[in-house]
Amino acid sequence: MPLNHRILLAARPSGPAGPECFSVIEEPAPEPGPGQALVRVEYLSIDPTIRGWMDRDTYLPAIPVGEVIRSGAAGEVVASKHPAYPVGSRAFGLLGWQEYALVGDGAAEAMPLPDGLTLEDALSVYGTTGLTAYFGIFDIGHPEPGETFVVSGAAGGVGSIAGQIAKHVVGCRVIGIAGSPEKCRWVVDDLGFDACIDYKAEDVPARLAELCPDGIDVYFDNVGGPILDAVLAHLALRARIVACGAISQYNDLDHGYGVRNLFALISQRGRMEGFILLDYLDRFLDGVLELATWVQEGKVRSRVDVVEGLEHAPEALDRLFTGANLGKVIVRL
Amino acid sequence: MPLNHRILLAARPSGPAGPECFSVIEEPAPEPGPGQALVRVEYLSIDPTIRGWMDRDTYLPAIPVGEVIRSGAAGEVVASKHPAYPVGSRAFGLLGWQEYALVGDGAAEAMPLPDGLTLEDALSVYGTTGLTAYFGIFDIGHPEPGETFVVSGAAGGVGSIAGQIAKHVVGCRVIGIAGSPEKCRWVVDDLGFDACIDYKAEDVPARLAELCPDGIDVYFDNVGGPILDAVLAHLALRARIVACGAISQYNDLDHGYGVRNLFALISQRGRMEGFILLDYLDRFLDGVLELATWVQEGKVRSRVDVVEGLEHAPEALDRLFTGANLGKVIVRL
Repeated sequence: MPLNHRILLAARPSGPAGPECFSVIEEPAPEPGPGQALVRVEYLSIDPTIRGWMDRDTYLPAIPVGEVIRSGAAGEVVASKHPAYPVGSRAFGLLGWQEYALVGDGAAEAMPLPDGLTLEDALSVYGTTGLTAYFGIFDIGHPEPGETFVVSGAAGGVGSIAGQIAKHVVGCRVIGIAGSPEKCRWVVDDLGFDACIDYKAEDVPARLAELCPDGIDVYFDNVGGPILDAVLAHLALRARIVACGAISQYNDLDHGYGVRNLFALISQRGRMEGFILLDYLDRFLDGVLELATWVQEGKVRSRVDVVEGLEHAPEALDRLFTGANLGKVIVRL
Repeated sequence: MPLNHRILLAARPSGPAGPECFSVIEEPAPEPGPGQALVRVEYLSIDPTIRGWMDRDTYLPAIPVGEVIRSGAAGEVVASKHPAYPVGSRAFGLLGWQEYALVGDGAAEAMPLPDGLTLEDALSVYGTTGLTAYFGIFDIGHPEPGETFVVSGAAGGVGSIAGQIAKHVVGCRVIGIAGSPEKCRWVVDDLGFDACIDYKAEDVPARLAELCPDGIDVYFDNVGGPILDAVLAHLALRARIVACGAISQYNDLDHGYGVRNLFALISQRGRMEGFILLDYLDRFLDGVLELATWVQEGKVRSRVDVVEGLEHAPEALDRLFTGANLGKVIVRL
């Protein structure tokens, strides 16, 4: 069997996940048993939730110390004793930060990928990123044409797709919140958002008041913290907050920002609701098919921020927290 | 016309609403014009929201300084030029802290009260209190039989009725949170709650963990603040938070408690939703009829905390914030 480089959780982070949290090992790739297949991983999906998994039990148990870093990933089947995963086919699943992963019975859950789909698209617009945006909008946020839709993390993987769906599919006024002039230019000039607030340079409450004079109908929240508080202060009647992520808080959930403006949920009859993509597994195909239509119609565009090399996966994760990325972060092995 | 004593807003409170916020004037009661009736107020409904109205625009505009304190109230029609309000009939509405109030065209909105209903019941179990509990439970919380239902402000007007409906109508396990041993005894021994946490004497997070080992399915929140935070840390999957009130915060909304555990809404797929009773005006009768059935069946019991004399209305309001009351606070004129 070929050698398998794997990145393990060496220590739980408190604060940003630094190099001390990771260790690299090298061992022979496992041989697939009956009902299993071996996938050579080609791309990792780098998502903020990985930082949570490293730290504590959330909607999934914490990654055990000494185990491979849990992560969405995709690649090609190189050995198989499972009829659904023939050699040469491709698969996506929670394959982890490693070069080779077993899928099938008693191993990682995975799904075969159809021909004609690039792995980059499979990990971004048709992967966790696009589907998170899709279900967050249609199952939680329920935006209506003409409503004001605000999305934070607007230049990130999920945010950029959520904003495009709200703008070009639903017909909302879409205001992004992002962390640099370059990001703001991208979502406005290239993706067609109506406006974007640079939260690092601008006064977010003042800009929200200016850009949303009738209040915010739907807020797609990827960041939590003070930006959530600022949005709460500008909710329209019967506003909906899609609680998708809180990346501003993940590095220190125990000493996080205290949200002060929740009373707005009462006075504005607002609703804040969380969701987890894994609950929608049985509807993934519906989402992918709709997203594919919108991509073909030019309504939704996907951008990936590619980091080269498994060994740079920790730095790729860090890009999400420093805000270095434009679009969905993936690692190419 | 008789003399009309009225309590006006003298100054906006910052912090608890002390005597400096109120002034009493005496003037002749107004004469009803065409389409109006004059009500002699007999009882005031003392609700936490009055503190909010004194301070700022919320779901209603702030009470203007120099105007009568806005308040639910009920009384008897003593002069009338409105066919729906004949002399001798009774009416309920936002009549304010005064002895006489005009209702009808261009005056306070009000509704006639049916014969056979005591004014005490009209202001408590069949008034804003009972109806707030009713719509909060059935339109927002949607508890199911066997679920764990937690209610704060459990010995207050709304909380005591919400807990009884959840327990004896829906069939939940009901845990109250209240501020004294006497209050806890009342809701457990007299109202049939399964347990009650004395938040002033007990460790709320530890007691919630103990009493709700499978998590909290529905939280009826009357208080906000640190108790909301403690509940968030114990949410069951797909929990619902009925954001009804935040009395712990009303005296200083601008420097309120920061809620840190909102991430639980994501990991538990929870929902937090606010509501305002005034939105349900067209369904009040449905609620009153159902509540009346439950009262007759002995499933819901109402208790009023009566303060005597219009001049003591400010102290009656203060009872809500010091937690002196057991049940619904009303003022008898």
